[in-house]
Amino acid sequence: EILGESLGKRTKIMCIGPGGENLVKFAMIGGDTRAFGRTGMGAVMGSKKLKAIVAVGTKKVELAKPEEFKEYVKEVNETLMGIYTSQVFQELGTASNMNLYSITGELPIKYWRGTDFPEEDNISGATMREKYFKRRRHCYSCPIGCGKVITFGENELGLPKGDISGPEYETIASFGSLMDNPDLQKITKANYMCNDLGIDTVSTGGTIAFLMDLVNQGKITASDLDGVDLKFRNMEAVFQLIDKIAKKEGIGEILSKGSNAVGEHFGVDKEQIATINNSEVILHDMRATHGMAIAYGLSPHYGGSHNSCDMYMVSLGGSNEAVGMDMVLPHENSPEMAISAANTMAYRAFYSAYGMCVFANPPSETIARTIELGTGLHFDIERIKSTGKRVLALKRLFNLKMGFTRDMEHIPKILLTPLEGGSEGNVPDVNVLYPEFYKYLDWNPETGKPSKEVIKELELEDYSNF
Amino acid sequence: EILGESLGKRTKIMCIGPGGENLVKFAMIGGDTRAFGRTGMGAVMGSKKLKAIVAVGTKKVELAKPEEFKEYVKEVNETLMGIYTSQVFQELGTASNMNLYSITGELPIKYWRGTDFPEEDNISGATMREKYFKRRRHCYSCPIGCGKVITFGENELGLPKGDISGPEYETIASFGSLMDNPDLQKITKANYMCNDLGIDTVSTGGTIAFLMDLVNQGKITASDLDGVDLKFRNMEAVFQLIDKIAKKEGIGEILSKGSNAVGEHFGVDKEQIATINNSEVILHDMRATHGMAIAYGLSPHYGGSHNSCDMYMVSLGGSNEAVGMDMVLPHENSPEMAISAANTMAYRAFYSAYGMCVFANPPSETIARTIELGTGLHFDIERIKSTGKRVLALKRLFNLKMGFTRDMEHIPKILLTPLEGGSEGNVPDVNVLYPEFYKYLDWNPETGKPSKEVIKELELEDYSNF
Repeated sequence: EILGESLGKRTKIMCIGPGGENLVKFAMIGGDTRAFGRTGMGAVMGSKKLKAIVAVGTKKVELAKPEEFKEYVKEVNETLMGIYTSQVFQELGTASNMNLYSITGELPIKYWRGTDFPEEDNISGATMREKYFKRRRHCYSCPIGCGKVITFGENELGLPKGDISGPEYETIASFGSLMDNPDLQKITKANYMCNDLGIDTVSTGGTIAFLMDLVNQGKITASDLDGVDLKFRNMEAVFQLIDKIAKKEGIGEILSKGSNAVGEHFGVDKEQIATINNSEVILHDMRATHGMAIAYGLSPHYGGSHNSCDMYMVSLGGSNEAVGMDMVLPHENSPEMAISAANTMAYRAFYSAYGMCVFANPPSETIARTIELGTGLHFDIERIKSTGKRVLALKRLFNLKMGFTRDMEHIPKILLTPLEGGSEGNVPDVNVLYPEFYKYLDWNPETGKPSKEVIKELELEDYSNF
Repeated sequence: EILGESLGKRTKIMCIGPGGENLVKFAMIGGDTRAFGRTGMGAVMGSKKLKAIVAVGTKKVELAKPEEFKEYVKEVNETLMGIYTSQVFQELGTASNMNLYSITGELPIKYWRGTDFPEEDNISGATMREKYFKRRRHCYSCPIGCGKVITFGENELGLPKGDISGPEYETIASFGSLMDNPDLQKITKANYMCNDLGIDTVSTGGTIAFLMDLVNQGKITASDLDGVDLKFRNMEAVFQLIDKIAKKEGIGEILSKGSNAVGEHFGVDKEQIATINNSEVILHDMRATHGMAIAYGLSPHYGGSHNSCDMYMVSLGGSNEAVGMDMVLPHENSPEMAISAANTMAYRAFYSAYGMCVFANPPSETIARTIELGTGLHFDIERIKSTGKRVLALKRLFNLKMGFTRDMEHIPKILLTPLEGGSEGNVPDVNVLYPEFYKYLDWNPETGKPSKEVIKELELEDYSNF
């Protein structure tokens, strides 16, 4: 903030906190309004002794057709706000679907083993909106504003009495149902601490919930945790551990390396740890929505990302047939599910390159048109699709170069054990979904590498010489 | 039931209860799974001394292309279930949007004057689903099954301990927020009584809530109501009045004629009664979603119907551009809103003729195709649109013949008074919406009659000679 003020109004900052400085494996990078939470990028900055990046804009962005562009964007924004989910995100935020997820089993409960969390209304977006809402928080130029600034006023949690950030769905689920905790204020405190200390809420919550599970099974006790009396619902203990993690204090040293390191330390079967490729998984249970097996297992951010392949939305009606994100019902284990997921992943790879949020989904042809008006290049849906596939293949090539092998796609048993709750005994079948995904994209199922033909077609020869 | 069993499995019944027999103005007709609640059709049957209509099917419906039809319907059902709202209706039923409506002010509170009903979670579709759900209830051949069969088990309300019908949104709002009542079990009892006695829940609830409002203002007391201690939240008193209405007992005689008769009896200003053309309005507050002013004021079922013009859905993203149901944001008072509402009303008029539920919205071209495969007639979107306009104009001609005049479209002040709650001071502007509606359809704004040109174009000459 001090840096920002000294440089004027058009300044944007990315910085790390103690978590990044101390090389916590899941340290995050904080932005002005949003956090780059997952995959430990904060630790990368920390290892380079880079505290912050400050950007000051002085030049104008030149547009091919500035007037038309401006007019058209206005129109697209109107179209966007005409979509049901946009309005729901605006009113209720990312935790709008708490009831539905609770009923379908998409909401994970008590470290992925629970089937009943009747207090989900207490931690819903609606409750946050009705009880604590102050105003919306919009990312730059977004008409939706799904972020929520809230306030608790005077409180006993040690939180500022003024404006604070409302936690998002993933954080609410991590520190809420996953820990059997129905207290939204305490979730908000955990969120506040993680943001302040610069560590990712999903991995922090996932790691601590894993410890709760171990305590619950009698595998560890408080004496294993520097005397911290951790158990499901005890959020005071959670606050203590968050602090220890960021500071790598005592047991925090091991916790700061994530669930798998913790599991190794306590001698736990890896199949009982909810991580994929070392990363705590996101909070949309794949037993309720099978496309997420592909999202977690095969997307470029292994284990970690729902946004790189939001099949939980596609299977709930957020399909986009124009780019092959076909509707497939959530419990299907079919080639169609794999193909839709591959197309969704490619579209979201394009989205990342375009700089667009997955919660904002105007028709794809309008997006192509904005590129045409902005850059002067010819763009259409076919080009969106090929660009998406190209970016996706490029990310895969990069990952391969960095040492990716297909065993990193392994999904542990804890996530594939049928539950009696909302998901009604369903599980994704990776023996169907994975091969069909590779087949559709024409990637080699042994090595994981895109085929020569694909590399040629997507003009990626320069990046594939290994 | 006895009639049905005596005639075998393929029997369908429509019948009236004591309400219809006693000519309660808002008596309903009960079907096997659904009720024809609004506009007092039960009293019409009662006045003709008609207790029930039993239909026994013996013949087959001949289809033009039976095999293709069957295949195609399967496909359409899959498409239908791929829509977000279909899935939400399936899981949570018609009261799925309780949180959102509460926040936007669409949910009416304390007889249309209240702004805060923090207990809406208690009466939501999610709560019904989680606490009392037994199974879905599907109308004939519907894949959604938005109806909910519930059970309270042993209970002190005098309800059967086995299966009972879960109340729908309109009933929940009528006997819930409109009466400041947060008790879902008591709402269910009111619903059960109304169904059992054969009276409409919306008009019954609206009339009793109006009385609560009068009590609240000190205009009447228990002594005006046969000693019944009516006030907001007192549901015991509501149960007593429901019984009196159906039996026309004591004050029930006047209540059985609806809010306007009650208002006249107690000398209340008509502008403070939430009726349009003598009918208690439906529970989507037009201050939150202005298209509903047209739905309530101008649709063929004056005052009474949300389904004849579901602009509350269209403005929430349930638009259908192919038939001119364009998305218009809920607080607009524009020609576009009036035009979208006119097209919506025409489409729903077609839907009624086609025999389709407004909650099931596969793409219009698939509907045209089912007609082609079923009847062999050529059908497309243009024909859907012209059929809709024709049915709508025909209904208007019928209403005119039965004595309709445009002063029946009047919306009382109580519904147009700005509120500080979720609707944030917005009100629909009928001085824009009404004229634009008439202009777009080319109906005469003085008489309300479709123009000669329209009548000719829609081939309705035979029905317009007056």
